[in-house]
Amino acid sequence: MPAPAPARFPRIALVGRPGSTDAPGALSRLAHMLQGRGHTVVLEDDTASVTALPGCPALAASDFAGRVDVAIVLGGDGTMLSIARRLAPAAVPLIGINLGRLGFLTDIPVARMEPVVASILDGRYVEEQRTLIAARVERIGGGTEECLGLNDVVVNRGALGSLIEYAIEIDGRFVFALRADGVIVATPTGSTAYALSAGGPIIAPEVPAFALVPVAPHALTHRPIAIPDTATIAITIQHGKDASVHCDGQAHFELAEGDRVVLRRAAYRARFLHPDDHDYFAMLREKLHWSETPERLGRRQQG
Amino acid sequence: MPAPAPARFPRIALVGRPGSTDAPGALSRLAHMLQGRGHTVVLEDDTASVTALPGCPALAASDFAGRVDVAIVLGGDGTMLSIARRLAPAAVPLIGINLGRLGFLTDIPVARMEPVVASILDGRYVEEQRTLIAARVERIGGGTEECLGLNDVVVNRGALGSLIEYAIEIDGRFVFALRADGVIVATPTGSTAYALSAGGPIIAPEVPAFALVPVAPHALTHRPIAIPDTATIAITIQHGKDASVHCDGQAHFELAEGDRVVLRRAAYRARFLHPDDHDYFAMLREKLHWSETPERLGRRQQG
Amino acid sequence: MPAPAPARFPRIALVGRPGSTDAPGALSRLAHMLQGRGHTVVLEDDTASVTALPGCPALAASDFAGRVDVAIVLGGDGTMLSIARRLAPAAVPLIGINLGRLGFLTDIPVARMEPVVASILDGRYVEEQRTLIAARVERIGGGTEECLGLNDVVVNRGALGSLIEYAIEIDGRFVFALRADGVIVATPTGSTAYALSAGGPIIAPEVPAFALVPVAPHALTHRPIAIPDTATIAITIQHGKDASVHCDGQAHFELAEGDRVVLRRAAYRARFLHPDDHDYFAMLREKLHWSETPERLGRRQQG
Amino acid sequence: MPAPAPARFPRIALVGRPGSTDAPGALSRLAHMLQGRGHTVVLEDDTASVTALPGCPALAASDFAGRVDVAIVLGGDGTMLSIARRLAPAAVPLIGINLGRLGFLTDIPVARMEPVVASILDGRYVEEQRTLIAARVERIGGGTEECLGLNDVVVNRGALGSLIEYAIEIDGRFVFALRADGVIVATPTGSTAYALSAGGPIIAPEVPAFALVPVAPHALTHRPIAIPDTATIAITIQHGKDASVHCDGQAHFELAEGDRVVLRRAAYRARFLHPDDHDYFAMLREKLHWSETPERLGRRQQG
Repeated sequence: MPAPAPARFPRIALVGRPGSTDAPGALSRLAHMLQGRGHTVVLEDDTASVTALPGCPALAASDFAGRVDVAIVLGGDGTMLSIARRLAPAAVPLIGINLGRLGFLTDIPVARMEPVVASILDGRYVEEQRTLIAARVERIGGGTEECLGLNDVVVNRGALGSLIEYAIEIDGRFVFALRADGVIVATPTGSTAYALSAGGPIIAPEVPAFALVPVAPHALTHRPIAIPDTATIAITIQHGKDASVHCDGQAHFELAEGDRVVLRRAAYRARFLHPDDHDYFAMLREKLHWSETPERLGRRQQG
Repeated sequence: MPAPAPARFPRIALVGRPGSTDAPGALSRLAHMLQGRGHTVVLEDDTASVTALPGCPALAASDFAGRVDVAIVLGGDGTMLSIARRLAPAAVPLIGINLGRLGFLTDIPVARMEPVVASILDGRYVEEQRTLIAARVERIGGGTEECLGLNDVVVNRGALGSLIEYAIEIDGRFVFALRADGVIVATPTGSTAYALSAGGPIIAPEVPAFALVPVAPHALTHRPIAIPDTATIAITIQHGKDASVHCDGQAHFELAEGDRVVLRRAAYRARFLHPDDHDYFAMLREKLHWSETPERLGRRQQG
Repeated sequence: MPAPAPARFPRIALVGRPGSTDAPGALSRLAHMLQGRGHTVVLEDDTASVTALPGCPALAASDFAGRVDVAIVLGGDGTMLSIARRLAPAAVPLIGINLGRLGFLTDIPVARMEPVVASILDGRYVEEQRTLIAARVERIGGGTEECLGLNDVVVNRGALGSLIEYAIEIDGRFVFALRADGVIVATPTGSTAYALSAGGPIIAPEVPAFALVPVAPHALTHRPIAIPDTATIAITIQHGKDASVHCDGQAHFELAEGDRVVLRRAAYRARFLHPDDHDYFAMLREKLHWSETPERLGRRQQG
Repeated sequence: MPAPAPARFPRIALVGRPGSTDAPGALSRLAHMLQGRGHTVVLEDDTASVTALPGCPALAASDFAGRVDVAIVLGGDGTMLSIARRLAPAAVPLIGINLGRLGFLTDIPVARMEPVVASILDGRYVEEQRTLIAARVERIGGGTEECLGLNDVVVNRGALGSLIEYAIEIDGRFVFALRADGVIVATPTGSTAYALSAGGPIIAPEVPAFALVPVAPHALTHRPIAIPDTATIAITIQHGKDASVHCDGQAHFELAEGDRVVLRRAAYRARFLHPDDHDYFAMLREKLHWSETPERLGRRQQG
């Protein structure tokens, strides 16, 4: 006799790395464990196309809304970025299991996934909501394109090796024009990704801001800026033969001179479920190799 | 017959640079103009001790609360920082006139002060509220000290030339320990001051965050972080013979090993009145010498 | 009766901005002045194709060796980089006249070109020799390509937006492997160009070093390094679909995974003639907008 | 019968960490090993005052010249900096053994010291000569002071928390004036120490340059500069109540406004003996935690 359907998260989707066959064992073990607990398990259809699991019907991510209560992702941060952008409009929460080195978004090691996932599904979790950026490309010749960034939206030069020149407006006011390799607009989530490499600050997830980070700016006085995430940011290509715009480094469009990219906070947020001992700063220490340890902190505690 | 007392800001205090006699002409002209408009004008008592103005009684800044509707400061940003910390608890708004190069806080040039101040007093202004940091030093041997920072609170080494080692906790959780010249906790206001020199990001005034910026950190992986301004930050001196803590670079206390500095957002904010065409980004461009101009932006406007 | 041929620099070539017609007046005035002093004047053939000057025969830059004693360039630093790479093997010295904002290499303003050029030709100059980098691309599939950089040789990613991964060897020893947007190897001349935007140090022209500057490195611990210019530097593409190598941002080749770029100091140097009051640091101040002035230095002089 | 005196390095001095008793076992083992090989062993007198070794007479470091062929230092980089400055004029070579984490200068782990030191003494070593900076303080009121830096000479502010303002001249020419926390002049040796924390470049030991690195400069356009080590650098305090100058962070003098610090390459160099497999870049990787490994480099070797 099967277990009764659990009250929490009765319907679960599993998502693997696109096109990858490296996780069939982990996917199978996880499906088995979940079914044993009484959950209904479906498999995201791209994942199913390379790794079929008996008893787990395939379902397109675009059909998760209303049919899936939580999605569990096995992969790296790249896999998570991709699926999180697709599920954010439907508000499906996500759990991330990392198959390799721990990621910022995939914070559960595969070796411990069964007890940790079970504990989360039993209600011992913290939910974190992360802002996304909605980008709309407005072509100077007419026409628009759209993409979404959970990490960042980047306007940059291409392979020709010459700088691009762009102007930034915030809420309709001119802010600056700059010659540079590019400019990154990052969410707090993306502040530890490409923006950090380019000299941007880390922005804690609770800070309602975007970081505006020039990449290799020609002017020495430019510095990264954190602006309210309620701002509308417009980036206009003034000069540059091979500019393009990238969302999370995963989708991109060519840009011509005069094209404008308008960025706003998306109307919805990505939802992540973490184990209840989740500690953002511990993860920063782990990922950034901050080497000092609390041992020397001594015994005084903050009152 | 004197002008009738105006409805807005009937009682005005004038404040000059402490101990300076460089502004008597400007103070006198301004007092005359204000009295001509029917305002009651008092002179901050330190200012009065070097520059007496006939018809303007002296009043201590600590007595402004309830007796003064707005304070006009003639000086530089240093003068403004000092008076703003003292007037913040009483919520007295401030207008800043700069006698030299324009400052971030003293944004009205002395040459144009009469029409600009008159316009503000007539109601054509924008009010900006700026966060302050309340610092409490908790001595390992008992006893506490307190100071307030509108720009920043800085813990740093002294003249001996050796690094200090400190540990940071946020909301009671260990974040990192570091050997460095020091660490800056800056408000958005202070993000364009010392923190910027040390590699911190600019934080727009509306972003409710503090920047945590290490100064010359011994570890190469440390980066500035923006954290919510609702956080409680504790900095504990672990090693260091001559550490001290500074508030706005104007008040400071020696720190011994084991001493802890606890920082929270102050319960009140500084209030600044700006001309209604005030533009934060224009001021950044002016002050940071961003050289590009909007001329090349072309004619497309953000819809 | 024409002036007798002068002893110094009897044969002079004039070079304009390629394809540009913005300098015919200046070229003509300069040719006239030089002919009046008795110099033989030729016109670089690309320049002659857009701006013919009566009495000035066209000559290809590749034929300057042995026929031209000095080349005078009217343009910007881009024009100078291009001609300097072509003339360096022949050791033809260069004089740079800037039509717009002063450049690092084109340091004579067009408004004062006649007296300054005359003074240089009369022997009142300082000669500066600048190192070049010879780059050889070694294809993993066989075959090589070569280019020359007076500023820099840059290996970087293209428009796809994903990082490249490369390994650096110096004199045959592995130094590091890195994921990044790219890496710049800059001469002292190029240290104030792209490398400076990417966070590299300024290297004074007399320092016999190259700067190795990663662009947006994924690892936080990487820092720019100055290495002896006698070193052989090899950059191997380990991963990256659209890497390329650029010389002075003017010539570039696509790179495939496994391709290697080997860099050495070129066997010859570019020769620049400057007015005898040329001051490298004054030029840095001018170009980098160092705003402080020597006025406050006081009267003590270094003994 | 004792071993015959070896031809190489017959007379050896041992130096421990000043005032430290943490190395008596290591000192004793090393002395015993050396005496067994026939070397005459003396003990630096400060070391002898805390750790007497039978059969090893005490000798002041100032008397090493002509009486000691090599000095072996057991300690950290701080110990080595101190003794290297004292022995440089006498050209006594140094071998560094580290009691804790490996240092840049003390590169032999104590656990392997016997075979490694024996191998060096048998002639299997590479000698590295490192530049020092000679600093002379010229008081505005007359009088001079001198100190020597193997890492760096630093002019900085003290505990008061206000910036200092200084002017830099190179070879008698004004270069810039700046308000900052301070300025570091670093040798290649010191480029991986404090200067690196302040944003300076790494300078390989063979590059004959000093790095000039401002600390937290008030102007955003200032960048670290590498200048020839033949230059004479003068730093004049223009404003600053509590400036001081530090040599290797170990000796320091107060500076008054108008005082000038003149820096030149010292007439002698420090001499270090390293095992013959010494690899500067491997040490950088180890110390800076560059995490990438050569494994992925593949099999192509530089021809």
